Amino acid sequence: MMPHTDPLTDTLALLRDSSDLRVWSVIITLMGDLTMTGTPDANAPGVSGQALGKIMSAIGIRPEATRVALHRLRKDGWIDSTRHGRRSVYRLSENGLGQTRSVADRIYGPARTAPDRWHLVALPPHTEDDGRFVALIAEGFSEVLPGVFLGEKAPQTIGDALHLSDSQMRLPDWVTQRLAPAKLRNDIAQLQIAISRLNQGTLPRLPVLDRTALRLVLLHEWRRIALRLPDLPVEALCPELQVRADLQSILTTLGPVQIDALTET
Amino acid sequence: MMPHTDPLTDTLALLRDSSDLRVWSVIITLMGDLTMTGTPDANAPGVSGQALGKIMSAIGIRPEATRVALHRLRKDGWIDSTRHGRRSVYRLSENGLGQTRSVADRIYGPARTAPDRWHLVALPPHTEDDGRFVALIAEGFSEVLPGVFLGEKAPQTIGDALHLSDSQMRLPDWVTQRLAPAKLRNDIAQLQIAISRLNQGTLPRLPVLDRTALRLVLLHEWRRIALRLPDLPVEALCPELQVRADLQSILTTLGPVQIDALTET
Repeated sequence: MMPHTDPLTDTLALLRDSSDLRVWSVIITLMGDLTMTGTPDANAPGVSGQALGKIMSAIGIRPEATRVALHRLRKDGWIDSTRHGRRSVYRLSENGLGQTRSVADRIYGPARTAPDRWHLVALPPHTEDDGRFVALIAEGFSEVLPGVFLGEKAPQTIGDALHLSDSQMRLPDWVTQRLAPAKLRNDIAQLQIAISRLNQGTLPRLPVLDRTALRLVLLHEWRRIALRLPDLPVEALCPELQVRADLQSILTTLGPVQIDALTET
Repeated sequence: MMPHTDPLTDTLALLRDSSDLRVWSVIITLMGDLTMTGTPDANAPGVSGQALGKIMSAIGIRPEATRVALHRLRKDGWIDSTRHGRRSVYRLSENGLGQTRSVADRIYGPARTAPDRWHLVALPPHTEDDGRFVALIAEGFSEVLPGVFLGEKAPQTIGDALHLSDSQMRLPDWVTQRLAPAKLRNDIAQLQIAISRLNQGTLPRLPVLDRTALRLVLLHEWRRIALRLPDLPVEALCPELQVRADLQSILTTLGPVQIDALTET
């Protein structure tokens, strides 16, 4: 068995292949985490450039890359920054906050359960793009065959579509694979392996910076996966796609990000 | 209003455009009719060349065409013939009898009712022809989109297909049109018009040959339509496809074919 001398290094190494550590996206993950796991009533909490740099360095991202990413995020309206003497403090903008909250359930929410009923909607062949495609996707439907959509709620606008609902439907393998393609399955498997190699007993004794960095790496990888999982709760039906509960257990063990502790040390 | 001086000529004229009076097929219609409406226990009743020629002539088919068709039908194993002195008598072969009986319900059966439940089966994309397509068609399913089938009975062999059943499904117009294409709809409309122009009160007073010929023309056109209607009872849901009841009423009024009366006159 592999010794767990440095869980952060191990985890980083294991996730590096599948993970896409785009720096700006990692910063959004971190700021979203501060927002979602911070004081419930608080607005986007600020994070100093100093604390941010420490965490990013701990996962192997150089200060220049962090600065470039912060510049880009500010320019794109994701974050605001304020200056306090020599310190810069960054927080999510109204826009960034809105986008973060709109997907929070998919990342932090509890495991989804299999639907009580399935709904299938088949559009007429050669349907001109009359908005129904987009409307069905927005209602949580997923396209499993050209023009054939599955969802777990009754569709709002059926029109002349063929619509069946069934409480007994079984999801065949090819539909699951269509909903969760090979790349996503592989990323989930990698994350499952990374989690399984961590020794939960020793995690709380890690230095606060390591704990924070490990939390960020795992959460970032999970966030990428969670946002690519379809609205249909396929993971409720596929053991090999289930990683949410284990991930949440690890995050609880690691505890929330302690920004103050980082800048004090 | 058009005078009904010669219902047979009127009907023939109206149906000529849509109808496909292939001579061999008309003979099968007649022999099937003799079999299905004759004595229940009798096997295929025979029909003399003389009687056959009279009926065919009455609907405008020349004796040479009838002889060629009889030759072809015998060669293809649809009919047998026996000689009695100078008379030839023709009857359906075992094979012809089997084929006639296998579709008798579609032609002579009562109107079908809308299904209590619908079943939708979607095959995986790019399904190799593994026999499921043919099996689903044989089970009465109809393909409404590539790889997507509708039926009124639970499929026997689902395998990894997506299967939903629903008692509430409404059949959209594009599915009906797919199941009953424009040509078929037009033929049904023509037959409906032909029937509506007949004066049922006067039909029983027609000469026996005219009655027989009219019965054959109407039945032949209906048979062509009935065999092209899908196994799904779309006509139960579409008033414009309903012609069976009116047709059966006319056939009852005209009475069964009286071969003996034809050869005696």
